[in-house]
Amino acid sequence: MQKYMTKKVRDMAVDDAVEGFFLLKSPTPKTTQNGKSFLSFRLADASGEIEGVFWDYDGNLHATNAGKPVKVRGAVSDYNGKKQITVTQIRAAKEGDPIDMNALVPSAPIEPKQTYTQMVNLIETIQDPEYKQLCVEMLARNRELLSCIPAAKSVHHAFRYGLLMHTYFMMCHADYMSRFYPFVNRDLLMAGTFCHDLAKAKEYMLSPVGLVTDYSVPGYLLGHLYMGAVEIAKVSQEIGISEEKSMLLQHMLLSHHGKPEYGAAVVPKTAEAMLLSMIDDLDAKMELIRESLEGQAPGMTESVWSLGYKLYNHG
Amino acid sequence: MQKYMTKKVRDMAVDDAVEGFFLLKSPTPKTTQNGKSFLSFRLADASGEIEGVFWDYDGNLHATNAGKPVKVRGAVSDYNGKKQITVTQIRAAKEGDPIDMNALVPSAPIEPKQTYTQMVNLIETIQDPEYKQLCVEMLARNRELLSCIPAAKSVHHAFRYGLLMHTYFMMCHADYMSRFYPFVNRDLLMAGTFCHDLAKAKEYMLSPVGLVTDYSVPGYLLGHLYMGAVEIAKVSQEIGISEEKSMLLQHMLLSHHGKPEYGAAVVPKTAEAMLLSMIDDLDAKMELIRESLEGQAPGMTESVWSLGYKLYNHG
Amino acid sequence: MQKYMTKKVRDMAVDDAVEGFFLLKSPTPKTTQNGKSFLSFRLADASGEIEGVFWDYDGNLHATNAGKPVKVRGAVSDYNGKKQITVTQIRAAKEGDPIDMNALVPSAPIEPKQTYTQMVNLIETIQDPEYKQLCVEMLARNRELLSCIPAAKSVHHAFRYGLLMHTYFMMCHADYMSRFYPFVNRDLLMAGTFCHDLAKAKEYMLSPVGLVTDYSVPGYLLGHLYMGAVEIAKVSQEIGISEEKSMLLQHMLLSHHGKPEYGAAVVPKTAEAMLLSMIDDLDAKMELIRESLEGQAPGMTESVWSLGYKLYNHG
Amino acid sequence: MQKYMTKKVRDMAVDDAVEGFFLLKSPTPKTTQNGKSFLSFRLADASGEIEGVFWDYDGNLHATNAGKPVKVRGAVSDYNGKKQITVTQIRAAKEGDPIDMNALVPSAPIEPKQTYTQMVNLIETIQDPEYKQLCVEMLARNRELLSCIPAAKSVHHAFRYGLLMHTYFMMCHADYMSRFYPFVNRDLLMAGTFCHDLAKAKEYMLSPVGLVTDYSVPGYLLGHLYMGAVEIAKVSQEIGISEEKSMLLQHMLLSHHGKPEYGAAVVPKTAEAMLLSMIDDLDAKMELIRESLEGQAPGMTESVWSLGYKLYNHG
Amino acid sequence: MQKYMTKKVRDMAVDDAVEGFFLLKSPTPKTTQNGKSFLSFRLADASGEIEGVFWDYDGNLHATNAGKPVKVRGAVSDYNGKKQITVTQIRAAKEGDPIDMNALVPSAPIEPKQTYTQMVNLIETIQDPEYKQLCVEMLARNRELLSCIPAAKSVHHAFRYGLLMHTYFMMCHADYMSRFYPFVNRDLLMAGTFCHDLAKAKEYMLSPVGLVTDYSVPGYLLGHLYMGAVEIAKVSQEIGISEEKSMLLQHMLLSHHGKPEYGAAVVPKTAEAMLLSMIDDLDAKMELIRESLEGQAPGMTESVWSLGYKLYNHG
Amino acid sequence: MQKYMTKKVRDMAVDDAVEGFFLLKSPTPKTTQNGKSFLSFRLADASGEIEGVFWDYDGNLHATNAGKPVKVRGAVSDYNGKKQITVTQIRAAKEGDPIDMNALVPSAPIEPKQTYTQMVNLIETIQDPEYKQLCVEMLARNRELLSCIPAAKSVHHAFRYGLLMHTYFMMCHADYMSRFYPFVNRDLLMAGTFCHDLAKAKEYMLSPVGLVTDYSVPGYLLGHLYMGAVEIAKVSQEIGISEEKSMLLQHMLLSHHGKPEYGAAVVPKTAEAMLLSMIDDLDAKMELIRESLEGQAPGMTESVWSLGYKLYNHG
Repeated sequence: MQKYMTKKVRDMAVDDAVEGFFLLKSPTPKTTQNGKSFLSFRLADASGEIEGVFWDYDGNLHATNAGKPVKVRGAVSDYNGKKQITVTQIRAAKEGDPIDMNALVPSAPIEPKQTYTQMVNLIETIQDPEYKQLCVEMLARNRELLSCIPAAKSVHHAFRYGLLMHTYFMMCHADYMSRFYPFVNRDLLMAGTFCHDLAKAKEYMLSPVGLVTDYSVPGYLLGHLYMGAVEIAKVSQEIGISEEKSMLLQHMLLSHHGKPEYGAAVVPKTAEAMLLSMIDDLDAKMELIRESLEGQAPGMTESVWSLGYKLYNHG
Repeated sequence: MQKYMTKKVRDMAVDDAVEGFFLLKSPTPKTTQNGKSFLSFRLADASGEIEGVFWDYDGNLHATNAGKPVKVRGAVSDYNGKKQITVTQIRAAKEGDPIDMNALVPSAPIEPKQTYTQMVNLIETIQDPEYKQLCVEMLARNRELLSCIPAAKSVHHAFRYGLLMHTYFMMCHADYMSRFYPFVNRDLLMAGTFCHDLAKAKEYMLSPVGLVTDYSVPGYLLGHLYMGAVEIAKVSQEIGISEEKSMLLQHMLLSHHGKPEYGAAVVPKTAEAMLLSMIDDLDAKMELIRESLEGQAPGMTESVWSLGYKLYNHG
Repeated sequence: MQKYMTKKVRDMAVDDAVEGFFLLKSPTPKTTQNGKSFLSFRLADASGEIEGVFWDYDGNLHATNAGKPVKVRGAVSDYNGKKQITVTQIRAAKEGDPIDMNALVPSAPIEPKQTYTQMVNLIETIQDPEYKQLCVEMLARNRELLSCIPAAKSVHHAFRYGLLMHTYFMMCHADYMSRFYPFVNRDLLMAGTFCHDLAKAKEYMLSPVGLVTDYSVPGYLLGHLYMGAVEIAKVSQEIGISEEKSMLLQHMLLSHHGKPEYGAAVVPKTAEAMLLSMIDDLDAKMELIRESLEGQAPGMTESVWSLGYKLYNHG
Repeated sequence: MQKYMTKKVRDMAVDDAVEGFFLLKSPTPKTTQNGKSFLSFRLADASGEIEGVFWDYDGNLHATNAGKPVKVRGAVSDYNGKKQITVTQIRAAKEGDPIDMNALVPSAPIEPKQTYTQMVNLIETIQDPEYKQLCVEMLARNRELLSCIPAAKSVHHAFRYGLLMHTYFMMCHADYMSRFYPFVNRDLLMAGTFCHDLAKAKEYMLSPVGLVTDYSVPGYLLGHLYMGAVEIAKVSQEIGISEEKSMLLQHMLLSHHGKPEYGAAVVPKTAEAMLLSMIDDLDAKMELIRESLEGQAPGMTESVWSLGYKLYNHG
Repeated sequence: MQKYMTKKVRDMAVDDAVEGFFLLKSPTPKTTQNGKSFLSFRLADASGEIEGVFWDYDGNLHATNAGKPVKVRGAVSDYNGKKQITVTQIRAAKEGDPIDMNALVPSAPIEPKQTYTQMVNLIETIQDPEYKQLCVEMLARNRELLSCIPAAKSVHHAFRYGLLMHTYFMMCHADYMSRFYPFVNRDLLMAGTFCHDLAKAKEYMLSPVGLVTDYSVPGYLLGHLYMGAVEIAKVSQEIGISEEKSMLLQHMLLSHHGKPEYGAAVVPKTAEAMLLSMIDDLDAKMELIRESLEGQAPGMTESVWSLGYKLYNHG
Repeated sequence: MQKYMTKKVRDMAVDDAVEGFFLLKSPTPKTTQNGKSFLSFRLADASGEIEGVFWDYDGNLHATNAGKPVKVRGAVSDYNGKKQITVTQIRAAKEGDPIDMNALVPSAPIEPKQTYTQMVNLIETIQDPEYKQLCVEMLARNRELLSCIPAAKSVHHAFRYGLLMHTYFMMCHADYMSRFYPFVNRDLLMAGTFCHDLAKAKEYMLSPVGLVTDYSVPGYLLGHLYMGAVEIAKVSQEIGISEEKSMLLQHMLLSHHGKPEYGAAVVPKTAEAMLLSMIDDLDAKMELIRESLEGQAPGMTESVWSLGYKLYNHG
């Protein structure tokens, strides 16, 4: 009798009999040419995705199960040169199932709680009481989402804790750079850096497991630069931040994509806005490279979509 | 004894002795090579500008007089092929002087009061009570400036009542176009058109006679697209407009420059936003052409700065 | 015994047995792996297209039937998630078959005869006898095609009567706009607008049912801007229009795409040429939006090819 | 008593007393600050230009003398580091004055009659009777202008016989290249090359001595690509050239600027059109370089306007 | 019993039984749904490619056979409208097999040995002993590759002897053009033209039969412009060419792509560098057109990838 | 009797009598209209420049004195609104004159010796012996120039020690960033950063006091990216660095301008090359902002040439 193994998707090989929890993606009921119903789908965990088929489909799984964990038993085969899993048993996960979300969903390569604490500590170093108060207030209003959501739909930081990782790295860079360029107002820079992407929480729609599935309608029509700046304006007024400081922060949020063709509503016109736009680009590009090189053999990579060319991994 | 005439700047000829009220521009105290003080400046009225010099300068006029009316007596001469006025008497205008501002400051070729009334009548035609209420409220908060300021610093509509003229023409176009394209929500289009440039009142600094002298700091750092959208958001919340309608209007304001390279914060993604961006461009270009052709002889014009080439005036 | 229904393509559902007239597209004889001939094709009507297969193919339909009506009997099934029709009987339509072309071929949402009459009435309003005579002559030479062909191969107005609809809408806009901008010569504008796309009749190759299948060789090598201008020059000379007026019209045709990167041979250098290029773009974009939103549920649409992004349909 | 010398403008030195014929440029009557009339102008010959002033101006020379020869006597001095000629006698040249136009007006570095003959000989080598007949006819209609006018207003070939030189060089290149690329139809290429710039004769306004002063109105509104193609179409019809051949030539003329941003009405879509656009660019660039390096010392040149950077002259 | 024919891939028809030598491309072992191994691949010769399948695969052919000749026996069939060959016998070619490489691998339409000799003769015409010596030395170091490799991975000249053909044609053009533009240093131009692409030998990885399969790592990170210039610098120093001449040649290599967006490291700043970049572009475009038109019926071609549009083949 | 003061150029006021050492710029002998010789020039120190005139010019100063110190006595006056110095005595500085070069020539706001030592210490932290050895060797060969020259001709870092300051700041950033992005090879990054601009010493021509006056011929024809990479290649070979490491460094130098339109010969294809290009841009932009804001009042600055717009100085 066959022995079922627990395996990560990336490690599955032809003829493996596997069993375990996976995320169900794009479940699509189909019909064979002779009229039989079956279910076509993909199974995913943090390590990758595999095509799947369930021949004994009786209508028990639907679109509403998409993006949620299922329990599965099946066998891996080769179909036209690609691996595929033929499932013999499949059901939605239930309350109480022993599911490890970190194994199912890709996460940032950081320790989230510790990183969160370090980010809060950096806010504490802001000297100007108004900028500090604003950050504390913005943190209070966005804590839950900031501490878990991705920083992007794809391209880079598109995993759990992505926004936290990106924001924390950039605040470290802001802190460091302000020592080299004394004409930069460190407090303004730190506050603008902390706040710059907070509105991404409103820009995206999130899947049940916290990944970005699409833009929200306000995200699509207004964008996170505008929504973030509006929130700065509103909170500043509510807690009594000076108009000048609020305006300087709004300018940083509106301009942090650097150039109109990259989505900036205005171009950066202060030292702090310029520096913010550059460390944002720097951290995004470096994370993009990390993800492109990760697990790759030395040599040329696949073409990196957002760069338009291949990287060279010198190992 | 010489007889002083009242003449428009455009009509002045060499050897004319002229007297009258003009705007003083760029008054600059200078010193001749032998150490004598004199005042260099330009005199302007609605018809044009002329260089001027006042040899008996005793310090009575300063930078604070710039942009304000002065009373002048002097003689027109030719200096290296250009007309110049040598002033013998000059003083700041006083309370009670018989000054006709319309003769001094260029104005839109419209009848302002009648145009204002017609614009308000168009607002009255909006059926949706929320969009209509918003327009009424925005009008109440911006009435004074909307009814007089220019629509631009230069290029087109850079005269008194310019914003009123531009807004009214565009609302007429919006009204007309909505009949051809029934999938367009006329009320949304009319409201967005009315509001689209209202924040220009905050984007500019105005001279004593109501012309744009420069961008304000918020205008320079935030821009009228953002400031206008923020005001829509704020007013909508205060008077209870639905979130969806407020968002659709904010989107129209953020996108009305059409493309990122023309300053749009987002691209137009609704029928109404797209139509607004096109009638804005259409009215701006046509006014630009009107100003470029006005008073020109048939034939090629000078190169039009914002187009980058010459127009042909077929008379 | 099965009952055959008459259904629009858009309304066909799996397991329907259908019968009726459709356009045959891309008929392609193929061979199964065991050597049996069959015919693969698409069936189309004004509502959409569906893939089709005919297993009993005996060579009776060929490439020459492409784009023409056929009579069909068959059953709808699901093939890998897409609808497909398996045809049991198929033959070319014959003289006398009860075919309703409006049901088979997509048409502009206008009443063609009435629109044609209104367009001719607008020509009658031209005061200048030369511009009017030119339009009357151009109409006489292009009447048949102008009254039925599409205005485009794809993107927008790519249906029967498309050129008529586009031309008539633009002439209405020209008429309206000329009232707002009195420096515009209304007669020149109306004449240029009427003539601007007439050479599209030579630029395209038309299918048997009047849709654009491809560019003609002269259309591809010379383009409708040039061919239209040449025809203006020729007709003007034949009927004795002044050189100046002919030149101004030729300029409008050569420049009506607005910018070199959009195909303009020269940039618009008169008020009328500039206005024509803007109302052309406006009507094209609005029709593009109409077609993109038509029949769509509220929310984001698919990405619109010629814009490069999704529209938002607020319903 | 001072001895007057005959000198080229380029060779004039401070304190020279000179006498001779020059072209009068931009004659501008002016008035000194104490009311005295004088004439300001430039004097030019084929070697260069010098500023001039005539203090005893009595109104005898006007704008109508601009661009025509004058006889002059005067002295060269230094004015703020630039050479200037103070004229004591000046009059318009008269019938019978011993004027050498080649000394006054810059000319192409070719022997015009010989080059003309060689160009005609190349036309004779065209085998296809229709292409040959067309060239012969086009030559007959444009002989006078083709044999003398410049090929440009500035940048390159902006001298007498410029169009002849440019056309002849390009026909040589066309002849040569057709041997390497046998899929090129040599006759079509030769004919298109000969005709490609003939409409420049209509695109420009010429000064009395045959230099380009400005664009004509048809030149500005229609351009030489269009006007040339129209002439091909018209002449072809008159003398009975086939439609296909006429169309291929029209396509070459419309596309010979290579890209829309360089003024092409359509992009080159035949081998001959592509080759024409490349040898046109090649000959224009090489002549531009010749003119930029001519008479320069080894080392970096001034920035070349149409390139946007400096060339290096290695001597 | 079936008779096997020898046929070019381009000439194969359904039901042909064929036998012969072909290149094996992309051999990929796969598994059917019922678990049987088979080999999927393409067979190629100089005339084209065809999909192939070998059902009796026993593991005898691997990735290491890719790009090498195999001997094949099989039958041509139709699979979903495309031709496919079902192979019954296949083996790697052996020492002694009667293989005609020219039939298997596409080659330039030149006679390689004669072209090589003519190219060497052109080098002999260089008068300057330093430039000549450099060319002789560069030839000696690159002879083997120069005389056989392609000039590109795809787009144009991507066949055996492509670099030789391209280099020879360009040297002819350089020789010819230098007569027309006497300010061009012919010796410098000839030397730069000969050397301009030699580093392509290091930029590519070559298949067993001499076609380009990919970029090498140095080719990808440094590029042939830089590598070629470095080799010029190195060889010049070794054999004692003057620094000035070496620098002028290095400049030509670094700039021969004309513009930064086409890969030029610097823009061409000498007459010779400018001319080289233009004849390089000219020969590349003409070869691209030759390959696009070759074997095509008159009319429009497929869209040419590197141009972005269709050519017109007037036959 | 008048008392002469020692004053910085920036502090000079009208009617000051001043005496001291300045740099002489653009000395130009001129002639008044009545034939008298005089010398026109500018005087400069580290604080700024002022126009000067010397009426008693006897030919004692020439073009060869340009850029060198002179001793001057004179009086400041106002000429058409700008300050000017009328010099009564002027002579070239002599050996032994008490000249403080730091007062005459603008210098980087760093302590040069200390910064140099810190930079060398950073080189010492490189672990890989090959990369370290290369840096030590490159330092040895470039020490003198690296320790004093500017990093640019204008725009930013265009002062003494500019290259040292820029290189040191970037090495600090490289050191810092390598801790955040562990897939970056710190040793490669440090070595590439140290070497990236060393060839600027060959790209520029320096004035007698060490400022950049122009590009050298090799700098103009080859550029510092290429020259730097060539030097890496050469030194690596001489001291035995592996080919792989040399290639990775050459790639970093060739790509450090990030994009072709900014002068990159290839785009950055390794993590280290990408990071180098971003910290180069970051440090250049921040220094540009420092120089633009320095000494400015709060508010909008003048338009910053290399950005194309004004910055806002919030004080």
